[in-house]
Amino acid sequence: MQKIRIGILGYGNMGKGVELCIRQNKDMDLVGVFTRRNPDEVKLITKSAKAYHINEAKEMTDIIDVMILCGGSKSDLPSQGPEFAALFNTVDAYDTHAKIPEYYDAVNKAGLKSKKTCVIASGWDPGLFSLNRLYAEAVLPEGKNYTFWGKGVSQGHSDAIRRVEGVLDAKQYTIPVEEALERVRNGEMPEFSTRQKHLRECFVVAEDGADLSRIEKDIKTMPDYFSDYNTIVHFISKEELDRNHNKISHGGFVIQSGKTGLNYENTSIIEYSLRLDSNPEFTASVLLACARAAYRLNKEADFGAKTVFDIPPAYLSIKSNEELRRTLL
Amino acid sequence: MQKIRIGILGYGNMGKGVELCIRQNKDMDLVGVFTRRNPDEVKLITKSAKAYHINEAKEMTDIIDVMILCGGSKSDLPSQGPEFAALFNTVDAYDTHAKIPEYYDAVNKAGLKSKKTCVIASGWDPGLFSLNRLYAEAVLPEGKNYTFWGKGVSQGHSDAIRRVEGVLDAKQYTIPVEEALERVRNGEMPEFSTRQKHLRECFVVAEDGADLSRIEKDIKTMPDYFSDYNTIVHFISKEELDRNHNKISHGGFVIQSGKTGLNYENTSIIEYSLRLDSNPEFTASVLLACARAAYRLNKEADFGAKTVFDIPPAYLSIKSNEELRRTLL
Repeated sequence: MQKIRIGILGYGNMGKGVELCIRQNKDMDLVGVFTRRNPDEVKLITKSAKAYHINEAKEMTDIIDVMILCGGSKSDLPSQGPEFAALFNTVDAYDTHAKIPEYYDAVNKAGLKSKKTCVIASGWDPGLFSLNRLYAEAVLPEGKNYTFWGKGVSQGHSDAIRRVEGVLDAKQYTIPVEEALERVRNGEMPEFSTRQKHLRECFVVAEDGADLSRIEKDIKTMPDYFSDYNTIVHFISKEELDRNHNKISHGGFVIQSGKTGLNYENTSIIEYSLRLDSNPEFTASVLLACARAAYRLNKEADFGAKTVFDIPPAYLSIKSNEELRRTLL
Repeated sequence: MQKIRIGILGYGNMGKGVELCIRQNKDMDLVGVFTRRNPDEVKLITKSAKAYHINEAKEMTDIIDVMILCGGSKSDLPSQGPEFAALFNTVDAYDTHAKIPEYYDAVNKAGLKSKKTCVIASGWDPGLFSLNRLYAEAVLPEGKNYTFWGKGVSQGHSDAIRRVEGVLDAKQYTIPVEEALERVRNGEMPEFSTRQKHLRECFVVAEDGADLSRIEKDIKTMPDYFSDYNTIVHFISKEELDRNHNKISHGGFVIQSGKTGLNYENTSIIEYSLRLDSNPEFTASVLLACARAAYRLNKEADFGAKTVFDIPPAYLSIKSNEELRRTLL
């Protein structure tokens, strides 16, 4: 079997996750990691692969089947997405929901021109959660769909806390409100305010002698990030933060509540949930399944941008169609 | 918009469910119900549709876009599947898991010849549960997948109890063992015996003066159906059975537990669950989403047998690809 040759662009948490997870996919090989840093200073786990400078990628189009773009949605992907779609089949986790149509168009244009296949906005949200929203809504058209995030670490909110005066370090967890989940599961189809769906729990390491009540107030009243939520602030030591809050865990729920029957007397509840010790490694795992699909779609001359909505599920699996029907159907 | 014109073959619980659920899909119209009975004796809910004898179907190939086959997997579909695939795009809920490859081949052959598109083995298991097994396994290749059924009514087990001497009526619920679910959710990846995964709860109406302890023993020791399970038997009145056990409810869980990380130190749990007041109406709802896909795939000249594994998710939705990307991704 010809293995799928993978390149990784960007070696942050997600790039490292992709490297680790390639080893769990027997039909894939890592060729190289591409970075803006000095490649000599990048130490890979994979002995058979090498780190390259990002500028070297364009010379390697014939030895890489799929490039996984691990950059950020804000400053990296808007340019890297179309740029690399002109050279490679790609997969990314572009997650600025509001700008997906625009990003799709840019990558699609580049991919159609280069005859490459580019899966955008993959991962779990967008990605697996999106799929579950689609399937649930298609099956239960008269219903309501709810997405809850957490319990999990929000990097953006943790960063926002660290910018508060007197804060040395912090970790913020987004947590679904249990009562809200239960009301949805009961088929009530409620409307929620922001505050009713999620709460925010913060573990904060303060400077010696800092005014803790002022820090707590600064966090809880911070617009956009915290002011619309019920927020809990705990002050802990740096040691405790490092010991008990060192995982980039995440998760969430997609729940559809729908009605059927002559008088809408029957309720159906579809619930999908994730509980992830490592958000970057799980996201990486989804990207790799999508890399397999990009590779196969490209072989069938199906070019341009794709989302998980466009990919026949079988294309994500290492198993043949016959084996899938025999073992998983 | 040209609506998708639907025919229903078979007017049992599922056929009736399909009729009800068509009204929830704005892009579909019911043309007719086809039955082996005298069609004059079949009263439809849909005013604009008519009941026909099954033999009339072959004259109506130009006014029906998709025929939903609502017969049973044991005695109806093995012949009806290929027979109707020769005439119509079809959707069915064939659920004899072990014989799916054989059934697929027969329907595929007929559909390729007639240039029709035929979605087989749809519904929720096989169907939505199969999809979740595939997605979860593709994303977490080093893991273990568990399917639990219930709490829900098993028609086959209820029938088996009714055949016990002295039993007037009965309803059997299959129930996942809570402790087993918890162990899977904890990432333990346990191996289970049949008895450890599900228990069976039976509500039995006995004849006046019947030997209840003999009936209970006959049920609990019944091979294939009950002897491998922990079984609870309640004797109740006919009135109570009709009042409290009149819904054909069902549901279940597909849970994947997987490991990632350098030393497999991170666990991911993917859980999908259904809780359905009406098993036939929910199954019907899935079949209709698949009917939409069959119709569209056929327009694109993608003929032969298909399963949910082959269908790009977007084909199931009434929304356009642009709208899906904008609203659900």
